[in-house]
Amino acid sequence: MTRVTARKIILDCDPGHDDAIALLVAHGDPRVDLVAVTTVAGNQTIDKITRNALAVGRIAGITGVPFARGAERPLVRSPRIAPDIHGDSGLDGPVLPEPVIELDPRPAAQLIVDTVMAHPAGAITLVPTGPLTNIALAARLEPRIVDRVREVVLMGGGVGVGNTTAAAEFNIVVDPEAAHVVFDAGWAVTMVGLDLTHQAIADDAVAERITAIGTAPARFVGELLDFFRGSYRHVFGFPDGPPVHDACAVAFVIDPDVMTTRAVPITVELHGEHTAGMTVADLRRPALEECRTRAAVTLDRDRFWDLVVGAVKGLGDPS
Amino acid sequence: MTRVTARKIILDCDPGHDDAIALLVAHGDPRVDLVAVTTVAGNQTIDKITRNALAVGRIAGITGVPFARGAERPLVRSPRIAPDIHGDSGLDGPVLPEPVIELDPRPAAQLIVDTVMAHPAGAITLVPTGPLTNIALAARLEPRIVDRVREVVLMGGGVGVGNTTAAAEFNIVVDPEAAHVVFDAGWAVTMVGLDLTHQAIADDAVAERITAIGTAPARFVGELLDFFRGSYRHVFGFPDGPPVHDACAVAFVIDPDVMTTRAVPITVELHGEHTAGMTVADLRRPALEECRTRAAVTLDRDRFWDLVVGAVKGLGDPS
Amino acid sequence: MTRVTARKIILDCDPGHDDAIALLVAHGDPRVDLVAVTTVAGNQTIDKITRNALAVGRIAGITGVPFARGAERPLVRSPRIAPDIHGDSGLDGPVLPEPVIELDPRPAAQLIVDTVMAHPAGAITLVPTGPLTNIALAARLEPRIVDRVREVVLMGGGVGVGNTTAAAEFNIVVDPEAAHVVFDAGWAVTMVGLDLTHQAIADDAVAERITAIGTAPARFVGELLDFFRGSYRHVFGFPDGPPVHDACAVAFVIDPDVMTTRAVPITVELHGEHTAGMTVADLRRPALEECRTRAAVTLDRDRFWDLVVGAVKGLGDPS
Amino acid sequence: MTRVTARKIILDCDPGHDDAIALLVAHGDPRVDLVAVTTVAGNQTIDKITRNALAVGRIAGITGVPFARGAERPLVRSPRIAPDIHGDSGLDGPVLPEPVIELDPRPAAQLIVDTVMAHPAGAITLVPTGPLTNIALAARLEPRIVDRVREVVLMGGGVGVGNTTAAAEFNIVVDPEAAHVVFDAGWAVTMVGLDLTHQAIADDAVAERITAIGTAPARFVGELLDFFRGSYRHVFGFPDGPPVHDACAVAFVIDPDVMTTRAVPITVELHGEHTAGMTVADLRRPALEECRTRAAVTLDRDRFWDLVVGAVKGLGDPS
Repeated sequence: MTRVTARKIILDCDPGHDDAIALLVAHGDPRVDLVAVTTVAGNQTIDKITRNALAVGRIAGITGVPFARGAERPLVRSPRIAPDIHGDSGLDGPVLPEPVIELDPRPAAQLIVDTVMAHPAGAITLVPTGPLTNIALAARLEPRIVDRVREVVLMGGGVGVGNTTAAAEFNIVVDPEAAHVVFDAGWAVTMVGLDLTHQAIADDAVAERITAIGTAPARFVGELLDFFRGSYRHVFGFPDGPPVHDACAVAFVIDPDVMTTRAVPITVELHGEHTAGMTVADLRRPALEECRTRAAVTLDRDRFWDLVVGAVKGLGDPS
Repeated sequence: MTRVTARKIILDCDPGHDDAIALLVAHGDPRVDLVAVTTVAGNQTIDKITRNALAVGRIAGITGVPFARGAERPLVRSPRIAPDIHGDSGLDGPVLPEPVIELDPRPAAQLIVDTVMAHPAGAITLVPTGPLTNIALAARLEPRIVDRVREVVLMGGGVGVGNTTAAAEFNIVVDPEAAHVVFDAGWAVTMVGLDLTHQAIADDAVAERITAIGTAPARFVGELLDFFRGSYRHVFGFPDGPPVHDACAVAFVIDPDVMTTRAVPITVELHGEHTAGMTVADLRRPALEECRTRAAVTLDRDRFWDLVVGAVKGLGDPS
Repeated sequence: MTRVTARKIILDCDPGHDDAIALLVAHGDPRVDLVAVTTVAGNQTIDKITRNALAVGRIAGITGVPFARGAERPLVRSPRIAPDIHGDSGLDGPVLPEPVIELDPRPAAQLIVDTVMAHPAGAITLVPTGPLTNIALAARLEPRIVDRVREVVLMGGGVGVGNTTAAAEFNIVVDPEAAHVVFDAGWAVTMVGLDLTHQAIADDAVAERITAIGTAPARFVGELLDFFRGSYRHVFGFPDGPPVHDACAVAFVIDPDVMTTRAVPITVELHGEHTAGMTVADLRRPALEECRTRAAVTLDRDRFWDLVVGAVKGLGDPS
Repeated sequence: MTRVTARKIILDCDPGHDDAIALLVAHGDPRVDLVAVTTVAGNQTIDKITRNALAVGRIAGITGVPFARGAERPLVRSPRIAPDIHGDSGLDGPVLPEPVIELDPRPAAQLIVDTVMAHPAGAITLVPTGPLTNIALAARLEPRIVDRVREVVLMGGGVGVGNTTAAAEFNIVVDPEAAHVVFDAGWAVTMVGLDLTHQAIADDAVAERITAIGTAPARFVGELLDFFRGSYRHVFGFPDGPPVHDACAVAFVIDPDVMTTRAVPITVELHGEHTAGMTVADLRRPALEECRTRAAVTLDRDRFWDLVVGAVKGLGDPS
């Protein structure tokens, strides 16, 4: 895994416990270069989400990276948040520091467009870990980004598994129309869905490895996992620990060998009564050559947790 | 597996290669008592389907059992058949004999109502292996059958797998409204779906065991499998042989130990663009006590094929 | 308007105040011959509706006509009633006598099939004034009735007007799938919708003409109108009186000159969020020759009320 | 009708014959002040539409007003154009001059946001006469414009009338999701729909009045009407002339007395099979005080055509 240059990414997120870990990992691993962070309403309201992102940026010691506030509500549907999972603040558990990073004045979609257009074609990878509202807005605002983006690696959806409804995952069901735009745009999309992320359970052994690092960011991750473990036990009955969904998408950009993927046509259901927001993967036959959507399949757990632990270590003790 | 009395079933089918095998198995195994056979448009038009059922009945040597012609089209939607899988006749491959059984004058739904009401509560099991039009019509025509039927064991749907669309199986997608009625009625429903029946591949070893029986019905099954193998290879790319879907539902009634099942809420999507006709199973949490829908999970392949071979042997050489 | 023989009709209804008036008119006018009365859940539950129909049949002095109990719930959707309009009994206002007519043992759909098939082709007109569940079930149970029925004249739907939702009328929205079957079947359908029936307001002058008749049935109609006037004032803000929807459909069969109609393709929306149950009429161009659906347009009010008053008079004082 | 200052409007259009007339009227009447013109894919592709807008701007003699190119496709759905009505160029009929106006570099949605935010609250009226993609994008990109815009006066939809489908009008059905955003946003919306614009038929007398003006812009309008008359005769069977839909919306901003409107809740159907893109108006009861959507009802034809003729005269002979 020697790469001449780090992969440039825009992390579009709604922290959220696992988004927060994803942000820490993205900044802590030298193989990605975080060129912008954008926020989107999802796990909580845009005000809370944006404040959380800035606070996590401070904990991670991020400087010189623009943070922009994004969509306060989905493209078409009414807003919907997840306080049952992430608490009233969207990041319950740890005490958050006051943010010191100042927001970029542009809306997130505008920052995404400007950043992609300012870089050469193929330079920027989009890593959305929340509802896909900002990404869809950017693609409609400036369609040329679709050819210019290297790829989209998103956490959301799943093959044959849902969490918010029987058939749909939270990020997609909150804004199915935006997800439809993203899956349908024609750029390369890798879906890191629930069937993959449910393999990334932060069990006690993982929590101990992270706590043992001993730095402030590591303690922060430990506190995130404590709260998140409780949510997953009470709401979903997960016995061993919470899945750190969003960190998986970042990990895949850092190191594609951390998971296997398969090419498969994926579209988003917009009109079902029980299936709105479902990512419909057509597994009936091998995908055609021109298929540009892929689904993550199997996580190499050891490699993944080594990567996460390494990245958290890599942050050092910034304050 | 000693049962004082055979289980009384009404087989509601659209032969169809696997329906034909299901009918042979149902008549050949003494643990079920076939009290009526009803037909429904599905794999082919009702005229062809009904003729096929009567011809298979002759091959099986069935006498004294009423056969009734059922719905010529789905409850609400336009008709749809599957000549790509079952050929122009609905039962391409073997040469069929002229039927000798005379049709009951009643429509299928009426025969189902009359039969259920004429037996004690809990006596009759419905085994639909085609679109669920007749069953839904019967339940709406005479709602008292819902409490009176012992259970419904149907071939159709699936968990996380489709064949006619990415998300839906043929029997359900042809008449989703009827399927909705059946899954929603309140009686006990066991769904033997594609995820189960794709475990019932009639590979070469199976075909040889059946051919080795040497009777006319066994030769007939062999010819059915020959044609069906080709369909599944060409249309779906199945390398080893065709799945004998419908025989699985009958086998489960004969011997529940032939597969495992799990209680899970199941409903049918009626309104999706990509998901209409999908059987939506909610796997997120353990089912509640009162859940009356079950999904088949794992087939005991050896036990299943022993049962099928035994039943075909049991038919002897009727002509 | 001299007709050699009266028009034979089956009235399929859910009394309901205006259904009750429709039944009285149908029996009181010699130009129709009521060959069967069937009931359907709609304005109230099937038990209450059926009891109401039998009671109204007694008030009308009907003898020798089979009454059959029909569907207790819609074809696919969950039951829905209208106690806000018709009260807890479905026929609040008058005191109802104990029924003396005995129910036919057959379900309504079966009686409809048997009656249509027992008469020559073109003999029977179906007049549904409730949800179309029974009619759809009959058409699916015995498809040959579609060619055999003379025509279907139904109260329901409307062009550009709803009552239960902004876009849909009660009879259709309660069972849109059944309505879809009926409008799509291929027989001649005349839709007497809200845009027509809102022209049939029983104002004070009308109420006085009816009361002045002085018979028991006329007093009963007066009491129905008293209650119904209150419902329409309070729920819909109708200032002048209630529309007697269902009587319009019967009146059209008695005397086609009572209203104008136009040929127009009509279909029923099944999948909309705000439009499910809407009768979608395509007014963009003149209908093609082969169009078999018509919408009622303009009521000749004087002719209509003369007809109604005449029919109520025609009942005499049966008890 | 003396106004201290002209009403500032952004015209968001897809010329299109009637859009072209709307643009001429907006520039020719002193009571509106055209502060920006934005284009949107609709009647034709965004390239053709934008070229048409620039050419019409030249014919009108517009200078110093930013023109920006907008969305090349709807928010969610696939693109759809109307060459049957507007020809291959989107503005068939007249010979168009080469554009001389240079495009603003910003996408339309951005220009809309910037313009609204640069003016005081209540200053800007949005007048969309094409699909509502740009307006929806602007509202999602910068939600503060919703409170800042004075009102939205749009041509699109209708009450009880469609043209592209039986239930839906072209501008709405092309991008129902965008329309849903606009009707649902909370700002004041006046819908100038087909039921109004079909009262604005440019018959021969109108055409003569316009031709008689004798200027180049008037000749251009005459040529537009010639082609458009043919489209409406052949496609929709309009005998007397074409309706100049989009000019009605501009006329209403110029002079509200040109038509009556009524407050009525309006929403857009997204999920129907036959009704997607329908503007569902709830006419059942008087609208509540807080209702912010209005539908145009009756056009004062004389006042309208006087206004149009006056505005075309007002353009003079710019070249």
